[in-house]
Amino acid sequence: MAGSTFGTLFRVTSWGESHGKALGVVVDGCPAGLPLSEDDIQKYLDRRKPGQSRFTTARSEGDRAEILSGVFEGKTTGTPISILVRNQDQHSKDYSNIADIYRPGHADLGFDRKYGLRDYRGGGRSSGRETIGRVAAGAIACRILERKGIRVTAYTKAIGPVSCDPGRFDSAYLKESTLGMPDREAEEQAQAYLNRCMEEKDSAGGIVECVITGMPQGIGEPVFDKLDALLGQAMFSIGAVKGVEIGAGFGAAAMRGSENNDQYAYPDAAGKDACMYGRDVRPVKTTNHAGGILGGMSDGSDVLIRVAFKPTPSIARPQTALAADGSIREIEIRGRHDPVIVPRAVVVVECMAAITVLDLLMRDLPSRLDW
Amino acid sequence: MAGSTFGTLFRVTSWGESHGKALGVVVDGCPAGLPLSEDDIQKYLDRRKPGQSRFTTARSEGDRAEILSGVFEGKTTGTPISILVRNQDQHSKDYSNIADIYRPGHADLGFDRKYGLRDYRGGGRSSGRETIGRVAAGAIACRILERKGIRVTAYTKAIGPVSCDPGRFDSAYLKESTLGMPDREAEEQAQAYLNRCMEEKDSAGGIVECVITGMPQGIGEPVFDKLDALLGQAMFSIGAVKGVEIGAGFGAAAMRGSENNDQYAYPDAAGKDACMYGRDVRPVKTTNHAGGILGGMSDGSDVLIRVAFKPTPSIARPQTALAADGSIREIEIRGRHDPVIVPRAVVVVECMAAITVLDLLMRDLPSRLDW
Amino acid sequence: MAGSTFGTLFRVTSWGESHGKALGVVVDGCPAGLPLSEDDIQKYLDRRKPGQSRFTTARSEGDRAEILSGVFEGKTTGTPISILVRNQDQHSKDYSNIADIYRPGHADLGFDRKYGLRDYRGGGRSSGRETIGRVAAGAIACRILERKGIRVTAYTKAIGPVSCDPGRFDSAYLKESTLGMPDREAEEQAQAYLNRCMEEKDSAGGIVECVITGMPQGIGEPVFDKLDALLGQAMFSIGAVKGVEIGAGFGAAAMRGSENNDQYAYPDAAGKDACMYGRDVRPVKTTNHAGGILGGMSDGSDVLIRVAFKPTPSIARPQTALAADGSIREIEIRGRHDPVIVPRAVVVVECMAAITVLDLLMRDLPSRLDW
Amino acid sequence: MAGSTFGTLFRVTSWGESHGKALGVVVDGCPAGLPLSEDDIQKYLDRRKPGQSRFTTARSEGDRAEILSGVFEGKTTGTPISILVRNQDQHSKDYSNIADIYRPGHADLGFDRKYGLRDYRGGGRSSGRETIGRVAAGAIACRILERKGIRVTAYTKAIGPVSCDPGRFDSAYLKESTLGMPDREAEEQAQAYLNRCMEEKDSAGGIVECVITGMPQGIGEPVFDKLDALLGQAMFSIGAVKGVEIGAGFGAAAMRGSENNDQYAYPDAAGKDACMYGRDVRPVKTTNHAGGILGGMSDGSDVLIRVAFKPTPSIARPQTALAADGSIREIEIRGRHDPVIVPRAVVVVECMAAITVLDLLMRDLPSRLDW
Repeated sequence: MAGSTFGTLFRVTSWGESHGKALGVVVDGCPAGLPLSEDDIQKYLDRRKPGQSRFTTARSEGDRAEILSGVFEGKTTGTPISILVRNQDQHSKDYSNIADIYRPGHADLGFDRKYGLRDYRGGGRSSGRETIGRVAAGAIACRILERKGIRVTAYTKAIGPVSCDPGRFDSAYLKESTLGMPDREAEEQAQAYLNRCMEEKDSAGGIVECVITGMPQGIGEPVFDKLDALLGQAMFSIGAVKGVEIGAGFGAAAMRGSENNDQYAYPDAAGKDACMYGRDVRPVKTTNHAGGILGGMSDGSDVLIRVAFKPTPSIARPQTALAADGSIREIEIRGRHDPVIVPRAVVVVECMAAITVLDLLMRDLPSRLDW
Repeated sequence: MAGSTFGTLFRVTSWGESHGKALGVVVDGCPAGLPLSEDDIQKYLDRRKPGQSRFTTARSEGDRAEILSGVFEGKTTGTPISILVRNQDQHSKDYSNIADIYRPGHADLGFDRKYGLRDYRGGGRSSGRETIGRVAAGAIACRILERKGIRVTAYTKAIGPVSCDPGRFDSAYLKESTLGMPDREAEEQAQAYLNRCMEEKDSAGGIVECVITGMPQGIGEPVFDKLDALLGQAMFSIGAVKGVEIGAGFGAAAMRGSENNDQYAYPDAAGKDACMYGRDVRPVKTTNHAGGILGGMSDGSDVLIRVAFKPTPSIARPQTALAADGSIREIEIRGRHDPVIVPRAVVVVECMAAITVLDLLMRDLPSRLDW
Repeated sequence: MAGSTFGTLFRVTSWGESHGKALGVVVDGCPAGLPLSEDDIQKYLDRRKPGQSRFTTARSEGDRAEILSGVFEGKTTGTPISILVRNQDQHSKDYSNIADIYRPGHADLGFDRKYGLRDYRGGGRSSGRETIGRVAAGAIACRILERKGIRVTAYTKAIGPVSCDPGRFDSAYLKESTLGMPDREAEEQAQAYLNRCMEEKDSAGGIVECVITGMPQGIGEPVFDKLDALLGQAMFSIGAVKGVEIGAGFGAAAMRGSENNDQYAYPDAAGKDACMYGRDVRPVKTTNHAGGILGGMSDGSDVLIRVAFKPTPSIARPQTALAADGSIREIEIRGRHDPVIVPRAVVVVECMAAITVLDLLMRDLPSRLDW
Repeated sequence: MAGSTFGTLFRVTSWGESHGKALGVVVDGCPAGLPLSEDDIQKYLDRRKPGQSRFTTARSEGDRAEILSGVFEGKTTGTPISILVRNQDQHSKDYSNIADIYRPGHADLGFDRKYGLRDYRGGGRSSGRETIGRVAAGAIACRILERKGIRVTAYTKAIGPVSCDPGRFDSAYLKESTLGMPDREAEEQAQAYLNRCMEEKDSAGGIVECVITGMPQGIGEPVFDKLDALLGQAMFSIGAVKGVEIGAGFGAAAMRGSENNDQYAYPDAAGKDACMYGRDVRPVKTTNHAGGILGGMSDGSDVLIRVAFKPTPSIARPQTALAADGSIREIEIRGRHDPVIVPRAVVVVECMAAITVLDLLMRDLPSRLDW
């Protein structure tokens, strides 16, 4: 019971189903005095909005954010910020035929077993729409982090078998990419791949990469609330995530110590930016296999996270499924579904990373004070 | 501050440094009436004990567990169980030469930045010895789970570039393997690889795989405390972990939906064991790419977790390191260090998985009751 | 930061200000399958509604509850229940003259010091209207408890110097009493007292008493989350509360042990109802100085709580107040204010008691299971 | 399950039974760099030690504190501090005759009902000895608060019917008083009263008052984690507490608003100490009925708490008690018991207040930062 709250000091409570009246979030612990408007939230929500390319669902999700509390005269007051997004355009009838079927790759069976019943209209709480609350909260977290010089940027690293080439990384192109890929060539291949998937009534997965720059050192609370541990929880809490890596990730497992250990080059030597934050003199590492985290605390380098998403489980292709009565049935899942969720998940990864980092920044404050 | 407690109802608080007087754990929320002796704990601690092969450190860590509370006349009483392990054989002098150096791949810099000082004798709180408390607590969790038919088993999947072959999986051999590998052939290759690493004063990483059988369905609390989310936190909270996968993991990102979606075969059809737990009739899946988790809840199949460990950062080979005064120095790390920590980490992965699952089983109880 | 969530398994998150767009609550951890409609919530909200007698504010607070999530086809689904109440009839201008004044007995100064700014329209987050979320959540908790035979009943024990006489306790009269007093004679005196307060532009305090019947034994989690400890937190979290007693309360401090110790009479001997709950055979106590709680756990007797409310701090009578610029000013507080909040606080006490008890019932479940 | 942890950032986990091997505490979240020795802890433990007068039990509880972790070279390191006190002189046989009896006023029945068994040797977890962990943790909290100019002082306000007279308050005498009373005359009467109790094989209760001076303004997290709410939880979590008041407490319920509202006098006008803390300019109030807390946040005045303790339930006088088999038996409780626990509870109240305030000070930090 009661798993819809995340964070200790910057605390986010998510609520709402895909086909209920509304979805939303309560953000408790937002500092006072922060300028905040509904537009600030909307910009982030628009990034996860469907219908932006032919590879995202044709449902029109208006998704207008309404701030109901915690903001007074354009500024946050320190009290809980409640944000509401009404559901519209719910073709609930599309789902009546699956009320008693457990769709492959979906949470249907789990909900039925856990609760004895479920809201069978769409994914309910495990729908991608649940991320609306996360993104609204993350928009606030991102704004606060940016004011402290911390920037969270995610992008599509791979779609199906097509990966961006680090050598072709193009941050300018990222802004116009419909798939959120910072590599024009890879994106074209990914589009071709997605077209084939769609023709074959199939779907694709992919990988989102997230970089956090400007991180102060020593953030993360050993031993259970380490920075990577809470990022791990945050990322795996996003639907469809099956793997998370920090820095070299699984690649580190095959390296030697002498290879994997990042060596430090002192800023002056490297002629790079020495950044200051409290006790920080930020050294430059010649590699970053650690992904900016050592012993569960930030080391001042960029934090690097990679998140693997499985292919959209809802496919129009015929599949066998378990029914509530125990029979096996052949089904074709109708409705409008993304052939790949990865491009829309980019902003969700960003937002969950921002929420995690901001909460840990706050939790770290007592250790910075001279008691 | 305050990151040393894990769990909501089965709550584990870890304390202690590698070179302090003692290490230990408080287990709060253990059910009453469970037969429990120090030997039950010791069996698990012995599995993480060093000195069992030439590939683990020669330090003799006696590591005798003492139960200080929560057990009366051989049974748990429901009150907190405090377990203590005294430190012995601390060659603290081995570390005096690194008091003002941030060793590559270690948490030294983070602690200094966060707290302004650190216990420089060994890893302190980020030492592998910190896992003693986790293993003592996990021993209790495993016992309770086993009584409910849930069994957690981990093993070394890979060391460096050498992987076990699923086709050669030999659970009988696993019991005698010095590297915790269930594949005799792979183990021989891994030993050869480790010998080369040691000759070259280097170290190796690897992968631990963990299987949980007998899981009831519907365990995990969407949306932030999903089973995979808390397993993610639990695994990344272990030192040296850089990646975590559930089921097909990063492989799922490259699959098509039609390929990744597991199909159900009804138990009778499969002629397999139909297991009962509350509302469960456990269906059999023809594949298990989901790794037993859908929508953050167990689906009744085996839960599959893979955890990537980086190579031991302490190597005798010369390295450059940042010193507290900002200079770059060449160092050779002396002392006794495992060339690979993976075999000793196997039981830690098991224990963290068990603690996570038991806590979520307890948190799930209110949803099973007919209110 | 982040103090707006209460409970571990039945978890309530409150949000909203008196003069913002709306107030509400997210109830996470409500069991599935419970029939629930907006009317069920409304009945409780109506009990705290003002304007029901001349002793409550003339503001018309419509306070219609809207359920936005967590209910499907009339039943709870186990997912978070979000409940919204729009604010109406906010005479915000009444407050502009106090924007830079710290009203005596109010939280104004605290908010300004804590956050550097505040929503000065009314009490903001410390307004009595904040209890709307608590009551909506408590309505759900009460329904669930009643299905388990646990009934929470509160009433006005005293207003100013006028106390109900236990010998005249009349539960039938309680239903029609405008002041929530179960003693017609005391109520008449209380009304006379309140009339004098109003004539003199003054206000009154009082005491609410709460009885929980049907409590199973052993509920409460020693040592910090004892039943009385969490009831203490719950009651003191209600605005204007200055004292809480369990059972004999402060009276126990003056008793002898031989007098205060409740003696047991076995049900049969007493010829009373022996109630069963799990392991319970409920004995009858000849007295109940313990107020149904021993060692932080319920003993099966009625739980007795008394809560002292200070007089409404907003009075029309001239007072001196500190201004933000450090000057002392004479003020008369305009606006519509209850001369006494106690009658409207009765349902709030009931609801907070119910939320606390239900959460502890859930937390107790693992100790009842045969592991 | 799992109720033995208190606090969010300064987090205290208590463990141990009266007749187990040891008792102790883990303090997680203590700032680094604080000078700390076992003597610092011992001074506080000695204040709760029995045998200091004829009114406390003759048991010799050596109670030597051992610090096992979190301190390096005489300073805290920011990692968890584990403190251990071995039990000695446990006359466990004194208790064998009550193994199957539920002593009046004790938690015996609750433990048996909750867990199905109990450690019947003394109070187990509900023994006064459990407070050893609280006092050890509180000793650390007090030291930190004192460095920030916050001082927590408690004393015996009343024993049985004998109360200290505020007009005779003598802080010098408090130091030598055996009953912790700051009023020599009242203490003499209290001693006479206790002598009578002892002659009659009976026991007495009493009231502890606690004053916190130097509190910054705005501490406390509305709405559920208000300063008074968490003090309420902290105080009611101490065994034998039946009532808690803040400021005027129950007396406020009988006051008029015009009387209860504290009026501000600006420091200069009052010629008193204007204290500075962050945004604070501390005004002086002409009364302090609020007890230093408004809207759940400190207002800069002294925080005033009063805590009612019931009489020691263990009395040698014959009583009837419920037995596990359902029979009613006459018992005389042997063993060595305090005729009044109040003098020894004084330091426990201080410590719980200090832990609560320090945790809330830390939680408040993000609201003080200019984000």
